[in-house]
Amino acid sequence: MSHAPSFALERRHRAIREAFAASKLDALVVTSLPNVLYLTNFTGSSAILVLTMDRVLFLTDFRYLTVVDESRGQAWECPGLDVIRVEGAYDSALAAILASQPVRRVGFEAAHLTVSRHAWLTRALPFGPQSGAELVPTEGIVERAREIKDDYEVATLREAAKRLSAVAREIPREVRVGRSERELAHIIDARLLGAGFSRPAFDTIVAGGPNSALPHAHPGERTFIEGDLVVLDFGGVYDSYCVDLTRTVSVGRASERAREVYAAVLDAHDRAIAAVAPGRSRFDIDAVAREALGRHGLAEAFGHGTGHGLGIEVHEDPRVTRKRTDVDLAREAVASRMVFTIEPGAYLPGWGGVRIEDDVLVTDGGVEVLTAVPTQLLEI
Amino acid sequence: MSHAPSFALERRHRAIREAFAASKLDALVVTSLPNVLYLTNFTGSSAILVLTMDRVLFLTDFRYLTVVDESRGQAWECPGLDVIRVEGAYDSALAAILASQPVRRVGFEAAHLTVSRHAWLTRALPFGPQSGAELVPTEGIVERAREIKDDYEVATLREAAKRLSAVAREIPREVRVGRSERELAHIIDARLLGAGFSRPAFDTIVAGGPNSALPHAHPGERTFIEGDLVVLDFGGVYDSYCVDLTRTVSVGRASERAREVYAAVLDAHDRAIAAVAPGRSRFDIDAVAREALGRHGLAEAFGHGTGHGLGIEVHEDPRVTRKRTDVDLAREAVASRMVFTIEPGAYLPGWGGVRIEDDVLVTDGGVEVLTAVPTQLLEI
Repeated sequence: MSHAPSFALERRHRAIREAFAASKLDALVVTSLPNVLYLTNFTGSSAILVLTMDRVLFLTDFRYLTVVDESRGQAWECPGLDVIRVEGAYDSALAAILASQPVRRVGFEAAHLTVSRHAWLTRALPFGPQSGAELVPTEGIVERAREIKDDYEVATLREAAKRLSAVAREIPREVRVGRSERELAHIIDARLLGAGFSRPAFDTIVAGGPNSALPHAHPGERTFIEGDLVVLDFGGVYDSYCVDLTRTVSVGRASERAREVYAAVLDAHDRAIAAVAPGRSRFDIDAVAREALGRHGLAEAFGHGTGHGLGIEVHEDPRVTRKRTDVDLAREAVASRMVFTIEPGAYLPGWGGVRIEDDVLVTDGGVEVLTAVPTQLLEI
Repeated sequence: MSHAPSFALERRHRAIREAFAASKLDALVVTSLPNVLYLTNFTGSSAILVLTMDRVLFLTDFRYLTVVDESRGQAWECPGLDVIRVEGAYDSALAAILASQPVRRVGFEAAHLTVSRHAWLTRALPFGPQSGAELVPTEGIVERAREIKDDYEVATLREAAKRLSAVAREIPREVRVGRSERELAHIIDARLLGAGFSRPAFDTIVAGGPNSALPHAHPGERTFIEGDLVVLDFGGVYDSYCVDLTRTVSVGRASERAREVYAAVLDAHDRAIAAVAPGRSRFDIDAVAREALGRHGLAEAFGHGTGHGLGIEVHEDPRVTRKRTDVDLAREAVASRMVFTIEPGAYLPGWGGVRIEDDVLVTDGGVEVLTAVPTQLLEI
């Protein structure tokens, strides 16, 4: 397993500290584990990071101390890491650490801290008019940094997409009459592990015939029959980074209608990718796909967004979707070094569906498609 | 895939509504997906449930409407389910639904709702002195019900444990000199899928030699050598329910020290299981394991809790741990129909570790061990 080099972590810390100014923070409590991993290379399941202007305070428990110790002296060691061993509850340990630091405005991740933990911390901390310290809600400070991938991340995602593509090119030949969705899903999962992924990035989707009209179907006992469209949507986690790909194939000869729907989705897919460039609005990229499907009378059949960011999480910013002014306050323009999916689909209940998904990297000049799998309709 | 029968869901709804009285609630907003699944059989990744005294309001989007429709008329249909299609953001849809209902005190799950969403809802809802309505934090209402398994859940967990045991009995013969941790982890994952599990319940742990001293090691490239202790910890999700098991084996003849440590952990394991009975304190069960290890001079080597509840989540209540009065307010006594792990371990950094884990069901008369795999030290 490889990890981000120390100098990349150092640069990430610097970027987060620069963001402190906007909210006049003295410290940020990072409780989101993907954000902790991004800032420290820690891949365990329990830790809290407190980043101050000059310290990197890292709370973890017994289970992970040895693995953190073993990172010392490695090229991927987290610079400045100050490990605090949590003996009891994390919240108590966090309260003690914050009380020991000369910090007044302590940011927390409002999108990750629950109301319960926030209430507990507020009670436990020596905050208030006397101390002058306060807990300050912040939104997406680390997530915003994570949207723009650094060299290590681009290289990791490129390698992951290459491996995923190799798996994807081989899977269509495993589709056959009489095989069940569940059997094929197991084959895909085994191939992902064999290709070096540490695990599937999400529950693999294999949806045949009418099930292909369900964008998030669970693979079941239904076996493929002649004429089925089969949606194959799978991804893997490679060195902590997620990639995601979908192809739709036909079992035997595709019907005229299936060809039409497939061609429409492919048109939307190709146009959306062609629309990707630094500075473009993510809502506009979504609209390009949506309009292409609309021209084929399939606007209503496309009920989800056109894409989502990829990285330490399989669904992260940027979201390439319709504009939602009420809750979506993330930045609108896509930028160089963002990585996201383009995955239009059309779903006709009772009949079936088509989805075609690739992973793209925004470059200074436009776009690079990281996945490399033929997109024409395969009839198997 | 099987699901809880409709009458079980009906009984669960009744239990939750009975819990409304303690907080004088008119409704509960359920945002925790495991809790939504428990109350509706919904296995998708996006939904919100609003349970009022007489309604079951269920918000989901396009992707899941067909699968919900298909449950209609089935023996596992969620009784009274009122489906509201979410077109844009869930929070907006939730605010609209709450505004349309004659509810004053609306409970929310404080341990699951983030500070961000809570702040948004508070702004969006017509709450305040004028309307008389308010958002009320609640803690663990559904989780407390989930601790006590009903007949369907007991049967599902028993079947899952049986299947996991069958896998576990075959795995030791796959341990061999020269094989890597990662290779063996892939074999285990493939066997889990082959045994009918929809996925591993967590990242499979295979930790050999010094790595076995890390309770949560990632399987790596290290290959097994003569004299290694190998910790094998894996679990699966079967019909949405999680089971979890650990065995530790020796590659070739075990050293005297390895036998001693193994015997101590097995002693702790057996005594802790024997201590399980309705009415026993979960802290006392933990203490039994801890004292047994202490008598062998291994108190310091056991840094985690003795067990955790199993169910829709792989880590749920009850937690069989040391008492933490500051944050742990869940009930102390274990009760009939609870299911949890017993998994003492001893970890000696640089040398290695041992963990032995089984899944137990509390019965009226005492305890039933659901997993069935020999516990003596295997030398392979």
